[in-house]
Amino acid sequence: MFCNEIKTSLFLLCYVCKFACCMGQNEDPLPSWNDRQTKQAIVQFINDTTTAGNKDYIIPEDRIAVFDQDGTLWVEQPLYAQFIFAMDTVKSNALKHPEWKHQQPYQAVIERDTDKIKNFTMEDIEKLIAASHSNLSVDEFKDNVQSWLSQALHPRFKKPYTDLIYQPMLEVIQYFKNHGYKVYIVSGGGQDFVRAYAEKIYGIPTQHVIGSAEKVKYEYRDGKPELMKLSEVFFINDKAGKPEAIHLFVGKRPVAAFGNSDGDRQMLEWSQSSNGRSLQLLVHHDDAAHEYQYDTVSKVGTFSQQLMDEAKRNGWNVVSMKEDWKIIFPSDR
Amino acid sequence: MFCNEIKTSLFLLCYVCKFACCMGQNEDPLPSWNDRQTKQAIVQFINDTTTAGNKDYIIPEDRIAVFDQDGTLWVEQPLYAQFIFAMDTVKSNALKHPEWKHQQPYQAVIERDTDKIKNFTMEDIEKLIAASHSNLSVDEFKDNVQSWLSQALHPRFKKPYTDLIYQPMLEVIQYFKNHGYKVYIVSGGGQDFVRAYAEKIYGIPTQHVIGSAEKVKYEYRDGKPELMKLSEVFFINDKAGKPEAIHLFVGKRPVAAFGNSDGDRQMLEWSQSSNGRSLQLLVHHDDAAHEYQYDTVSKVGTFSQQLMDEAKRNGWNVVSMKEDWKIIFPSDR
Repeated sequence: MFCNEIKTSLFLLCYVCKFACCMGQNEDPLPSWNDRQTKQAIVQFINDTTTAGNKDYIIPEDRIAVFDQDGTLWVEQPLYAQFIFAMDTVKSNALKHPEWKHQQPYQAVIERDTDKIKNFTMEDIEKLIAASHSNLSVDEFKDNVQSWLSQALHPRFKKPYTDLIYQPMLEVIQYFKNHGYKVYIVSGGGQDFVRAYAEKIYGIPTQHVIGSAEKVKYEYRDGKPELMKLSEVFFINDKAGKPEAIHLFVGKRPVAAFGNSDGDRQMLEWSQSSNGRSLQLLVHHDDAAHEYQYDTVSKVGTFSQQLMDEAKRNGWNVVSMKEDWKIIFPSDR
Repeated sequence: MFCNEIKTSLFLLCYVCKFACCMGQNEDPLPSWNDRQTKQAIVQFINDTTTAGNKDYIIPEDRIAVFDQDGTLWVEQPLYAQFIFAMDTVKSNALKHPEWKHQQPYQAVIERDTDKIKNFTMEDIEKLIAASHSNLSVDEFKDNVQSWLSQALHPRFKKPYTDLIYQPMLEVIQYFKNHGYKVYIVSGGGQDFVRAYAEKIYGIPTQHVIGSAEKVKYEYRDGKPELMKLSEVFFINDKAGKPEAIHLFVGKRPVAAFGNSDGDRQMLEWSQSSNGRSLQLLVHHDDAAHEYQYDTVSKVGTFSQQLMDEAKRNGWNVVSMKEDWKIIFPSDR
């Protein structure tokens, strides 16, 4: 009897607590967004899919949101951070590899031959990735990435790469998480690279980071188990590879998908292919003054006319960084 | 001022609520376990790793526990359920494939030739898996598995396979989840097969099921995106493949690992290789009266003397199903 009375009282108290937690919801969840169509679409989507009784209500287990990283959550110009990390690592290791002095693409990197670097082929880039990402344990690699990030500066903004994340998108991530969504990064970049900092800068834990992956091999070093990174590519998480990897890792269709380039097209299509309500969004880089303006560039991020046409046809939201966002980086606040 | 007062009151109320939630913890979390060394080790591990201030305290983000499935969470004898599903599916599809009548291993399955079936090679089994698991969309495959599970019965227990789960292990899963652990299934079985029922019977969502996987291919059927299952194996999640896949999916060392065979050895080693506190457990099938008694069998689950020796050397817990468990299945309650 006593126990039941306590339970009833506590139920009421907890109800009050819950009510109190909801009070904060009247605050603007997306303060860095201008009150335009895209912001309204995001807020409407969250309201509709998380309000019990709404015809588009989505049960918590199915609330999966996926975000591309490079160009969607942080700056990808003038070159992917991971590629600069690879080149810096090759330069640092040059003394241990005297043969690199006379071998491309290593020679160009060591001599900072910008003309050659600009014209690197995918094969060149893969060689540099292999030289900087393999023959290391997964722990050693993580340490290397974190150490590099702690001192490398972006060439234009003169800030650490981890500062060059988009404040408006951080708000979207937090908004989705606050409403019971599981948030995943689905990046063409290296999974182990992104995992080295995603928890710290985005609040996204390693198990929610899906990226391109090299094979790893379980072995014993001095009797201790280690996972060693091999130079062999396991899968590339780009284009059709994105929905394929989402199925592998999550096993469910996402209902919200955020990207910024042709590499995200299939992921957005896949998120829209269920019968229920879903949200698609593409970040369009049109703010040269505060960030970059580009549609098609040779190495980094292509937003083709075909993608823009498909976005219009399918009702995907296209974010104008210039018009939709009040600020770009957290430090702009 | 008013707002702050409300906040203070609510803080106190929430504190009371939290206290109330803890009250239930005095109940036995593992009622189907006899009070022997293994149960005590599990309870001690949870207490030590989740009590703030304890020298072995583990922060919530690092609380990762991994469970093998076949033979650890449900019955794997006389044959893996997935293999029986594959054979039943081949039988059902025989009319559509008249050529199978004269081709092994299909012919043996169609004719129920138990002698031949007993002697199937890995290659035979892979052919049957391919014939029953591929050229289907991921949604169609899930429907097939769920439909099969709803009517297939275990040959000895005459019950659905999904009833033949181990009650003591369900309690361990719940106990870990209640203490902030993320619980993953890490199975040699097919990932899409296990995902078709894991949420319903274990409360483990699809994104926490890691298993062997075939490749999938993103394509359009009547203009609609689909993920089609191919017959090509992507990776086998067994032995060294288990820690490799755990790294791929989770990106962190688990601190607790549960298995029952030589296929789980490396996963248990990997969970023990961090510097902090960890728990390892092997289920040993020694209860012929209520389940099965086996150490080494040709097709299903091998618990070698070498594994037993390693368990002793490394302080891994070995569960005697006969001595440690009061009951085996939920229906025994």
